[in-house]
Amino acid sequence: MISAGTTLRAMREGKPLVHQITNYVVMNETANATLAIGALPVMAHALQEVEEMAGIASSLVINIGTLSPHWVEAMELAGRTASARGIPVVLDPVGVGATTYRTETARRLLDAVDVTVLRGNAGEIATLVGAAAEMRGVESMSTGMEPADLSRAAARQLGVIASVTGPVDHVSDGERVLAVANGDALLATVTGTGCMSSAMTGCFLAAKPDEPLEAAAEALAAFGVAAEEAAAGADGPGTFHARLYDALYALDPETLDVRTRID
Amino acid sequence: MISAGTTLRAMREGKPLVHQITNYVVMNETANATLAIGALPVMAHALQEVEEMAGIASSLVINIGTLSPHWVEAMELAGRTASARGIPVVLDPVGVGATTYRTETARRLLDAVDVTVLRGNAGEIATLVGAAAEMRGVESMSTGMEPADLSRAAARQLGVIASVTGPVDHVSDGERVLAVANGDALLATVTGTGCMSSAMTGCFLAAKPDEPLEAAAEALAAFGVAAEEAAAGADGPGTFHARLYDALYALDPETLDVRTRID
Amino acid sequence: MISAGTTLRAMREGKPLVHQITNYVVMNETANATLAIGALPVMAHALQEVEEMAGIASSLVINIGTLSPHWVEAMELAGRTASARGIPVVLDPVGVGATTYRTETARRLLDAVDVTVLRGNAGEIATLVGAAAEMRGVESMSTGMEPADLSRAAARQLGVIASVTGPVDHVSDGERVLAVANGDALLATVTGTGCMSSAMTGCFLAAKPDEPLEAAAEALAAFGVAAEEAAAGADGPGTFHARLYDALYALDPETLDVRTRID
Repeated sequence: MISAGTTLRAMREGKPLVHQITNYVVMNETANATLAIGALPVMAHALQEVEEMAGIASSLVINIGTLSPHWVEAMELAGRTASARGIPVVLDPVGVGATTYRTETARRLLDAVDVTVLRGNAGEIATLVGAAAEMRGVESMSTGMEPADLSRAAARQLGVIASVTGPVDHVSDGERVLAVANGDALLATVTGTGCMSSAMTGCFLAAKPDEPLEAAAEALAAFGVAAEEAAAGADGPGTFHARLYDALYALDPETLDVRTRID
Repeated sequence: MISAGTTLRAMREGKPLVHQITNYVVMNETANATLAIGALPVMAHALQEVEEMAGIASSLVINIGTLSPHWVEAMELAGRTASARGIPVVLDPVGVGATTYRTETARRLLDAVDVTVLRGNAGEIATLVGAAAEMRGVESMSTGMEPADLSRAAARQLGVIASVTGPVDHVSDGERVLAVANGDALLATVTGTGCMSSAMTGCFLAAKPDEPLEAAAEALAAFGVAAEEAAAGADGPGTFHARLYDALYALDPETLDVRTRID
Repeated sequence: MISAGTTLRAMREGKPLVHQITNYVVMNETANATLAIGALPVMAHALQEVEEMAGIASSLVINIGTLSPHWVEAMELAGRTASARGIPVVLDPVGVGATTYRTETARRLLDAVDVTVLRGNAGEIATLVGAAAEMRGVESMSTGMEPADLSRAAARQLGVIASVTGPVDHVSDGERVLAVANGDALLATVTGTGCMSSAMTGCFLAAKPDEPLEAAAEALAAFGVAAEEAAAGADGPGTFHARLYDALYALDPETLDVRTRID
């Protein structure tokens, strides 16, 4: 049953460790969002320790935003460890479609790792299913598919929960498609909010590992409700960004359930 | 004709992609400043993709703040690609003069890449023209030249637009020297504001590539006006920093032209 | 004599350069905290320059939060240089106890470098003295020793000033134990505040190198008083974080001495 509030409550009680191998631009941001929502972040990327760290974590978030060969190797190693342990893995294929290296790396990780949730923008996900997509750097400019169809197709083709974020988010396991209508336009004015939504997905999966479709949608709803709250008193991207952590921290499970807009 | 507002308007319409290979300290900050002013940032530093990324960008910003050999190699490769395509390149020689490695790297990049604008503090630029300069880490403590003379000399000697920032900024193509008197003292209390001004230079160059002297000065005026606006309601460096993104986002082209102080 | 205000005043007059080799998550944060309190941060990690940079700095801060082999090598090289010059060195053993690699690296650095102050949470320090400790990622969950005893034992066994932070901080040289009761619970909701307290320790050591025990305690008192001030008007972790830099910048030496709670 979908209830972001119930999952949030369980997360805050368990304080799951969420291992993140992410990009240089957003490390501070995803760590802070993870702490604010109520889980424990840990950043570790050395080949010497990723297996051990993934071995004690409750979920793993892999993000290729500023990839390079050593990091990709560590992502794969951590991902294999997580897969072997059966903990959820989130893959954020930042900028796939912009360069060949990004596209090939995302495909390689999808092959090697049992990815639970693939969280990206429409252009990134469309690229991975071979549909038409226009990327400008890490931004999705347009795709040839409706996002609901895209999420279903990606889930089926890639064997993942596909979480396609945008003005309305669409999350699918290949059968059901959940549309999440929470959020605010200011999210697009701050770098790393997509990456934060992937981190939030890792937190919710850690608290509800047996229902990954629901957990993935609930994570986006929670993040979106916090964004709505943060936007209410913001003067622009900078104060919105600071207030976003306040709002994640202050999220009340009951209010969250009332405000969740998942169809 | 100098009009920061006109260039800003063109930038927001075109949303140019600004490829940045910058330092770990400020990646989030320069990406957010780029988004807030109205362009699209992309951070990519792997040798496997910098040519392709520089190949789709409208300008390239190189910043050596936390340099290491692989990164410098990528900066050179991206810079050569950008030069070959004729897109503008900004070089920010962070900490040149503090260590031999930084000075040699900046010289190497100036040799290998067709740098459009060299943006640094007085000590960094003085070091590169062989003038007396005292650096303390990445801070300029004193130089033996007046900044206007320094910018002109650097432009002539190094074959670049030299953009020397300080209490008043001086930008020169070797003939004209434009003095930009916008800004606020709080800028010096936040790390990475120099790096942000280099990113802003990359954004304005992308929107006005044929007039790099003017674009470089306009970028500093726009950043300075935003800083003035942010400082007005700030309680110190932290709230100033958050408000700076608000102010960049809210910059109104007409107001900007009224408040621009370029001589 | 303990007087955080006196040391703060000396620091702001001298503006010491504090060389930091720290982790990707907090680089911006520790640089900004260093600037805000009144010292000059410099981040440099390449083997090609760390000796030269440590050679001009007034103190060195080493932090293993996102360690990897090249970085550890640079930490050791910079640490040896600092030791040879007799400048203070702070080691922050982030996440020791969570993975073997972290524990071995911290031991290696303690062996190779003349560490002045070891600043960590209880679990990290307990791990290094071989006491019982439960870590969850980089968080200390529990230890088998009282923190005052732990700090004294660590100081004696490791030959350092041991600075164990927590709800109350304990700093010891193996004989005296200073308890620092400043701070606010919001510190635990923002990532990198431990790392910032290590950076503050480096700043105070640079200003009072001959009394490292007192300097280490004063740094925590100053950081704690700033946190109390920041918390007063904060709505949560995000606004607290921004206001923390405001408060560090606004710290008044006389008020600081009045509010310091060191026993």
